[in-house]
Amino acid sequence: MTITVKALQKTGPEQPFQVASIERRDPRPADVVIDIKAAGICHSDIHTIRNEWGEAHFPLTVGHEIAGVVEAVGSDVTDWKVGDRVGVGCMVDSCGTCEECRAGQEQNCLEGNVGTYNATDVDGTITQGGYAQKVVVDERFVCRIPDGLDFDVAAPLLCAGITTYAPLARWGAADSKDGAPKKVAVLGLGGLGHMGVQIAAAMGADVSVLSRTRKKEQLAIELGAQQTLATSEDGFFADHRGEFDIILNTISADIPVDKYLSLLKPRGVMAVVGLPPQKQPLSFGSVIGGGKVLAGSNIGGIAETQEMLDFCAEHGIAAQIETIGIHEADAAYERVVAGEVFFRVVIDTATFEDAEVA
Amino acid sequence: MTITVKALQKTGPEQPFQVASIERRDPRPADVVIDIKAAGICHSDIHTIRNEWGEAHFPLTVGHEIAGVVEAVGSDVTDWKVGDRVGVGCMVDSCGTCEECRAGQEQNCLEGNVGTYNATDVDGTITQGGYAQKVVVDERFVCRIPDGLDFDVAAPLLCAGITTYAPLARWGAADSKDGAPKKVAVLGLGGLGHMGVQIAAAMGADVSVLSRTRKKEQLAIELGAQQTLATSEDGFFADHRGEFDIILNTISADIPVDKYLSLLKPRGVMAVVGLPPQKQPLSFGSVIGGGKVLAGSNIGGIAETQEMLDFCAEHGIAAQIETIGIHEADAAYERVVAGEVFFRVVIDTATFEDAEVA
Repeated sequence: MTITVKALQKTGPEQPFQVASIERRDPRPADVVIDIKAAGICHSDIHTIRNEWGEAHFPLTVGHEIAGVVEAVGSDVTDWKVGDRVGVGCMVDSCGTCEECRAGQEQNCLEGNVGTYNATDVDGTITQGGYAQKVVVDERFVCRIPDGLDFDVAAPLLCAGITTYAPLARWGAADSKDGAPKKVAVLGLGGLGHMGVQIAAAMGADVSVLSRTRKKEQLAIELGAQQTLATSEDGFFADHRGEFDIILNTISADIPVDKYLSLLKPRGVMAVVGLPPQKQPLSFGSVIGGGKVLAGSNIGGIAETQEMLDFCAEHGIAAQIETIGIHEADAAYERVVAGEVFFRVVIDTATFEDAEVA
Repeated sequence: MTITVKALQKTGPEQPFQVASIERRDPRPADVVIDIKAAGICHSDIHTIRNEWGEAHFPLTVGHEIAGVVEAVGSDVTDWKVGDRVGVGCMVDSCGTCEECRAGQEQNCLEGNVGTYNATDVDGTITQGGYAQKVVVDERFVCRIPDGLDFDVAAPLLCAGITTYAPLARWGAADSKDGAPKKVAVLGLGGLGHMGVQIAAAMGADVSVLSRTRKKEQLAIELGAQQTLATSEDGFFADHRGEFDIILNTISADIPVDKYLSLLKPRGVMAVVGLPPQKQPLSFGSVIGGGKVLAGSNIGGIAETQEMLDFCAEHGIAAQIETIGIHEADAAYERVVAGEVFFRVVIDTATFEDAEVA
């Protein structure tokens, strides 16, 4: 017996969304059935649909920023009960036994974690994401959404929040240095960057936004940044040489890596979470001098995702969003790609109610 | 009043060494006068002489792997006394007050440290290195050579030793993981690599040498490696995917960075101490997946250099050397460049005694 729900589905990279009826698995003993309230639109969803990250398995429902309420639980589930406010991010399963899973780093599972959509699940089916009414997920991949966070502003935290929180925590944005806050530069102020600014500021860091121009300066300051520095201005790299402890690079475009590394203090860290399509030329001298670090980061583990949600609730941090109905999803994709969204679009899944299945 | 000593001097990149008479400064209150017993030949010396790292200031005496005995001390020196066995590495001064110096990271001094040779000293003179009879150095830049280490095998530790010890210590080669030793790959088995193998093995790591061929396998095993892996063999990168916690890259040539990063476990670290002349193409995806780290490292601070010397003495580690007289230095340079030295050439400075100044 399976659960039939309405979902936004793509049948190909160029096709519009359609409302389809999809099946969720009958809950296993360790499963939680979640009534989805809000689903964030992540740029990854668009890359997937457009076959930019390999061939998508159509027909496909994407979405890995999911917030909702527990509607039912399997017989073995003890941590969750009906009515709990919960979220699901980019993963829905992993082996649970490898050294990465045991270390709470399920995103690095040595057997490969199961992505929330477009991935082959343990039963061989292709996972379907959160632009839907319900989802069924193993309880280990469910996080609690604290009461202080509304579903719509919490949903993007499950991807954009943890993606920026994990490297900032790992590389010590919260630590002081000689009694002074760490100096953190956030490169790019989009869906990821706007979370990074808020989180780094709440950690106590002195945050600068690095952007081509100063046009988002007011927004950056409202999010907690001290300043916006315009990277296109003359003398930018010389003026800010050796200034930052951490650079969080959230952009997915080519960057002059060596120049950005020159902005770091000795032993500084450039954490990259944005993936440019091309290889970037790097002089090893840019990291050897000063013992600098170029570190990748990919979402975060489940326990750390919970820690991030609690941290955000405690510090009053949430995604800055606009809410849309399901019929506006195609238009929203265009605006995300055009960089016109400040900063995240979230689908109100209540709008499925009156929709007819195509 | 200055101290006049014999030294090996180059008057140009193509000129042979000549025995010259050079002047060392009259000791300041914080200075130590060192009677040099042994001076290692580092590839950096050759790069400098050949103007490969910028224009050298000729006439020049190079050498930054210096071991000897304290012959005199300035009036304010309390930590050193005549007869102490000491060494000097790549630096002879730094501001001492910036946050990097205060953190024991003099190599990253924000005012710029003063290199042991070819650098502008605080008094405006160009520093002259260790291929000489004596050197005068601020006491803060002197390390103690433990009794268990002979001068000739200790000299290379002041550069090759600390260059490999610092990143191995920083990135946890000594830590166990789930009760098992860390798996460390040393890329390149030359002057740096042969120290890295010994140090990592003494830290308790499971060490593999990565080399184009297996021709140095026996040497690698004698140094403490478990095995040599031949990177030129078919299937090498596929067979060893995700195997290592740490890769210490000691080679100064182009490498396929992304392929080497694929050899790391999740959260693994590639520490680079070799500087290829060209930029290396890097896909950010190679570090984002698995949250991997590409970290530069540049020698180490003075306190850590002392820690390394003590560690080497405790574990019976030393450079594997051949000793030459001063008249063999030009020939040694040729052999270093040709990769024919296993693993370090050290100049016995006693051979200055009978040499006539040119």
